[in-house]
Amino acid sequence: MIKSIGYAAFDALSPLKPYSFDRRALGATDVHIEIAFCGICHSDLHTVRNEWGGAKYPLIPGHEITGHVKAVGSKVKKFKVGDTVGVGCMVNSCGHCTCCKEDLQQFCARGFTATYNSTDAEGKTTQGGYSNHIVVEEKFVLTMPPHLKLENSAPLLCAGITTYSPLRHWKITKGHKVGIIGLGGLGHMGVKFACSFGAHVVVFTTSPHKKADALKLGAHEVVISKNADEMKIHLNTFDFMLDTVSAPHNVENYMSLLKHDGTLCMVGASPEPHQISSSVVIRGRKNLSGSLIGGLAETQEMLDYCGKHHITCDVELIPIQKINLAYERLLKSDVKYRFVIDISSLSHK
Amino acid sequence: MIKSIGYAAFDALSPLKPYSFDRRALGATDVHIEIAFCGICHSDLHTVRNEWGGAKYPLIPGHEITGHVKAVGSKVKKFKVGDTVGVGCMVNSCGHCTCCKEDLQQFCARGFTATYNSTDAEGKTTQGGYSNHIVVEEKFVLTMPPHLKLENSAPLLCAGITTYSPLRHWKITKGHKVGIIGLGGLGHMGVKFACSFGAHVVVFTTSPHKKADALKLGAHEVVISKNADEMKIHLNTFDFMLDTVSAPHNVENYMSLLKHDGTLCMVGASPEPHQISSSVVIRGRKNLSGSLIGGLAETQEMLDYCGKHHITCDVELIPIQKINLAYERLLKSDVKYRFVIDISSLSHK
Repeated sequence: MIKSIGYAAFDALSPLKPYSFDRRALGATDVHIEIAFCGICHSDLHTVRNEWGGAKYPLIPGHEITGHVKAVGSKVKKFKVGDTVGVGCMVNSCGHCTCCKEDLQQFCARGFTATYNSTDAEGKTTQGGYSNHIVVEEKFVLTMPPHLKLENSAPLLCAGITTYSPLRHWKITKGHKVGIIGLGGLGHMGVKFACSFGAHVVVFTTSPHKKADALKLGAHEVVISKNADEMKIHLNTFDFMLDTVSAPHNVENYMSLLKHDGTLCMVGASPEPHQISSSVVIRGRKNLSGSLIGGLAETQEMLDYCGKHHITCDVELIPIQKINLAYERLLKSDVKYRFVIDISSLSHK
Repeated sequence: MIKSIGYAAFDALSPLKPYSFDRRALGATDVHIEIAFCGICHSDLHTVRNEWGGAKYPLIPGHEITGHVKAVGSKVKKFKVGDTVGVGCMVNSCGHCTCCKEDLQQFCARGFTATYNSTDAEGKTTQGGYSNHIVVEEKFVLTMPPHLKLENSAPLLCAGITTYSPLRHWKITKGHKVGIIGLGGLGHMGVKFACSFGAHVVVFTTSPHKKADALKLGAHEVVISKNADEMKIHLNTFDFMLDTVSAPHNVENYMSLLKHDGTLCMVGASPEPHQISSSVVIRGRKNLSGSLIGGLAETQEMLDYCGKHHITCDVELIPIQKINLAYERLLKSDVKYRFVIDISSLSHK
């Protein structure tokens, strides 16, 4: 067993608190990682507060993990001690179903094992990256590009792949007009990737004060989505829209901005169902779709791409002692654009 | 002017009655067609009863028209007197927008001119095929395959192309598992085309008595959609589903039967919006889409395909004097699978 410490939720209402626990002993195909940084994803908060149900306390969230290899199992081939590595939302999957064989582990027929609040092969609850050590099956460990800062690349493991994957799947490239709806952790990465792929990028936000930020990130235009006249200018013109908003919102308004055969892809999970009229998809043969993180091969491809093109996330680094404050600020979207925990702060008194 | 007679609605509530009117004089690029048969589409009824709004009375419905060329304008090249021809849902479009140039006239940026209850270039209201003559711009006239019965091929012009187009667009072929939701005028053509393209075809119906009919049409399996256990067997297995139902229904139930990256395409316009949860499309990267008839080139392609493969609609031929009774039966889905009006009955006393 590997002695670990982290910050855990003990129920849906109380603040996260320090927690000592054991990671499993290193198996033959396991990698033992000393965690350096862990991003804070909005889903951490949803899970901790049991807003999606099924929370198993004590619960250590965190699935945007970067760090260094501290030890490897006897059969591990890809990694050696000292390597800089990452772990995202998944730590295992069945490996046998059609989706796993197609490198789409995120759609594993048996459900992938999530990095936290999931049940592993031994029946133990998985614990996430707000902690100093983690033991992960080699296959689910990613290689981090050597010259990217580990604190800025941690959120690539969730926010990065969540936006990269659909933009790649729908083959976004030069000549495409792409909308990015919402400018948070996901949205800001959507802007960076879509620009990098050569698209004409339009950010949709409800907040006029985000306009300058969006342009600074590389967006070519910004539309204040509450302004009907601004919206109207873009009717039937988009090839693709990436909808990163997880609050309730009118998806039909955005669908109307798609060209014929265009796709609106949701990556933010709104708590309430959307109202979609048949005519909205029938007229123009438009598509409403969604995307969930990405498979392991694609995640590595994304990391390599980011390494090559110097793409990382804009983050605010915090010591773990400020986690509960960070959650409060996250609820107010008061962060540009991702909080990342400096795990070395765990040893602070 | 060309003297014509037909059956028209004079308001939203009264039965259709005989009506004498003028068609425009033959222009240089016009084709004058003597109508032989006209199919009855459910949208005729919606329009006549003003359920979609905008009804302009007197209103002669009908957009599944077959007949013979009686005269051609001086510049008409494709047709000569005596040719067997068809007219579908469109009689004109702008011709200049991106969609028109891509042969997707159904998505014309200015809106195509519908065969009835639409305004033509001269500002006159168009009148449909429940009548003995029609004058149509050459480009919007289709060539009927010579050896298909004109009464059985009339509904190809709407029900046929509406189902053919999405099955072609999503490249349905051997090895695909395809669901056809609903077994009416559209559904029965969906079954015929999907089978003809080599797919494994599963019909979904709420009516157990339609099971034998579906199998006779070529379906490989039939699922009674009210039976949750039957539905469950097919979870995550469909490549494509064609949803022909225009009554309110739970689309999410069907989306759950799609494989990852599968598409549910709506061709029936439900009067109320559908409730679609983000998670339904996010998990499995599933697509909700729609399709509207088809462009002119594709409609001709479909007719040629039907000629080659001997595909027509199953119809019940009626004299025009029975139109109001047919509407009542249509509302009860009491027809296999399309009523077609024998226009020669207009001269009956």
